[in-house]
Amino acid sequence: MQIETPYLMFLGDVPDTLAAKTAYGIADWRPEWCVGQLRLPGCAADLGIPDLTLEEAAAKGCRTMVIGVANAGGVLPPHWVSEVVAALDAGLDIASGLHVRLGSLPEIAEAAERNGRQLHDVRHTTETFDTGKGTRRSGRRLLSVGTDCSVGKKYTVLALERGMRERGLDADFRATGQTGVFISGRGVAIDAVVADFISGAVEWISPAADPDHWDLIEGQGSLYHPSFAGVSLGLLHGAQADAFVVCHEPSRTAMRGVKHPLPSIQQVIDLTIQLGSLTNPGICPVGIAVNTQKLEQDEARTLLQDLTKEHGLPATDPVRFGVDGIIDRLLAEFPAGSAA
Amino acid sequence: MQIETPYLMFLGDVPDTLAAKTAYGIADWRPEWCVGQLRLPGCAADLGIPDLTLEEAAAKGCRTMVIGVANAGGVLPPHWVSEVVAALDAGLDIASGLHVRLGSLPEIAEAAERNGRQLHDVRHTTETFDTGKGTRRSGRRLLSVGTDCSVGKKYTVLALERGMRERGLDADFRATGQTGVFISGRGVAIDAVVADFISGAVEWISPAADPDHWDLIEGQGSLYHPSFAGVSLGLLHGAQADAFVVCHEPSRTAMRGVKHPLPSIQQVIDLTIQLGSLTNPGICPVGIAVNTQKLEQDEARTLLQDLTKEHGLPATDPVRFGVDGIIDRLLAEFPAGSAA
Repeated sequence: MQIETPYLMFLGDVPDTLAAKTAYGIADWRPEWCVGQLRLPGCAADLGIPDLTLEEAAAKGCRTMVIGVANAGGVLPPHWVSEVVAALDAGLDIASGLHVRLGSLPEIAEAAERNGRQLHDVRHTTETFDTGKGTRRSGRRLLSVGTDCSVGKKYTVLALERGMRERGLDADFRATGQTGVFISGRGVAIDAVVADFISGAVEWISPAADPDHWDLIEGQGSLYHPSFAGVSLGLLHGAQADAFVVCHEPSRTAMRGVKHPLPSIQQVIDLTIQLGSLTNPGICPVGIAVNTQKLEQDEARTLLQDLTKEHGLPATDPVRFGVDGIIDRLLAEFPAGSAA
Repeated sequence: MQIETPYLMFLGDVPDTLAAKTAYGIADWRPEWCVGQLRLPGCAADLGIPDLTLEEAAAKGCRTMVIGVANAGGVLPPHWVSEVVAALDAGLDIASGLHVRLGSLPEIAEAAERNGRQLHDVRHTTETFDTGKGTRRSGRRLLSVGTDCSVGKKYTVLALERGMRERGLDADFRATGQTGVFISGRGVAIDAVVADFISGAVEWISPAADPDHWDLIEGQGSLYHPSFAGVSLGLLHGAQADAFVVCHEPSRTAMRGVKHPLPSIQQVIDLTIQLGSLTNPGICPVGIAVNTQKLEQDEARTLLQDLTKEHGLPATDPVRFGVDGIIDRLLAEFPAGSAA
């Protein structure tokens, strides 16, 4: 799945900004791709970019209209369908993060056909994968892992991509979730892949590359989460990670959606090394990324200092304090030119 | 997916018995369901049961025609399509283990519709699952795990079902692979489930039951297999196994389809306990099942004695020597009435 850029961001008439979370994520990390937004009367979200008509968007070179919003019920309301059809008629592809498949709506399927345009359902995949082979491939890979779901795994690798590129390093974010796919323009929502092909899909997402190239792979779930550990393990094996960063949210008392307690950071480090060694015996941790949003600045600093000391790894909140320490550690562990 | 029994076994005109492996498995384990077979001219397979026409099969009470054969290319040749349509017209449902979806062939979809009959694609699932919750449920569960793929995990739990039922115990085989689904008439090919729902699907396959009831769950892959470990882990977590049996094939030098070495039986025991504890802290091994097909009788006995001694667990070849020792151990570890 390769989504053509730049994007026109469709926000519909969502009742609040939370419903447009995906769109905000894309605008934050790929402002250069977000040429404008299309909002319907009553829309409560605003990306702070120009409001464009479909004709204006096409004239400004937009290639794809991105539906980066959720609506109640997961269905596409009729007044959105007509906008999607109009966008196809204006020459844009459509990429959607909705549960419903765009092509399952006859008017949309017809309009895509009529205009020779692509429909991308980011939550689904039409890509055919091989099963994972576990064969070592060239290039370096970092994976973000977590003590739980939704603890900043995507944010962490995106921050690393930005920071590494600023230092002139060759690094690419590799998406494994739907928002990430919009942000990278490529990838696959790994939780939508058929179980047998999880590690194979990750091998496809992060193919062989130059020896000093870094793929920064978005992690999913947690090896300790009873709902999703299988996905996390397939991802770890497919990634063949050289390095990993543990992401953590210190205010959680139970794992998301279940009653299981959170594992400790040390448990996650140990299990990631133990299981990751199957496809990359050299795997090692290079940092801890903590979401300290619910802590005061001083508390946050103290916690991070304690974690740094306890684990001998740079611990940071990527949002508050950046990821320089993690990049330093990564480069110290894996100096350029050191790849086999 | 609930497949109505008994079955008419469709063998088509397969060129050898290997192509009918699934059909042989069903006939071996559920002879009482296999009323007859339907073979086309040139068929090289024979289940040793009566050859029936569709009309005879319907008259004898067959409810489903099972396509338990593979054909080159995975497509359904035209002369099979016409037989499937005729079976639907004769009032039978169809259950298929082919890659192609029966309903994707317009003639078959139409005939099913016309006759109000069910089409079951065992390799695909239309069931909607929740994500796994990891909440303990009543009833006992045993899972077969392996040092590799295709080492006898299905055979082992089927042998245990037979043996336990002979002793008057309440035990059900629970299928997680396509042949197994035909044998149980229910279940799901776990490797076809979308990754996010692996453990949830297993929770569905093996629901809450009476405290002394045993579900004997077919394992898949290996926690050490770089292609499929994610599936194996989701299965382990969803199964919440009280007990497990390690299955092994001693002549393998590398894991199936990849270059990775086989783990030792002890490694599999240790990792299964370590990871399985997440959803069942009481998990323990109750036996080792070895496929000794390639060994002489004496060699096999010696190997099994050595393994029994080394691991302190009953080691057997279920085909050659039965599973009595494993059942004895299971009952000793989990006496009836001991469940919480």
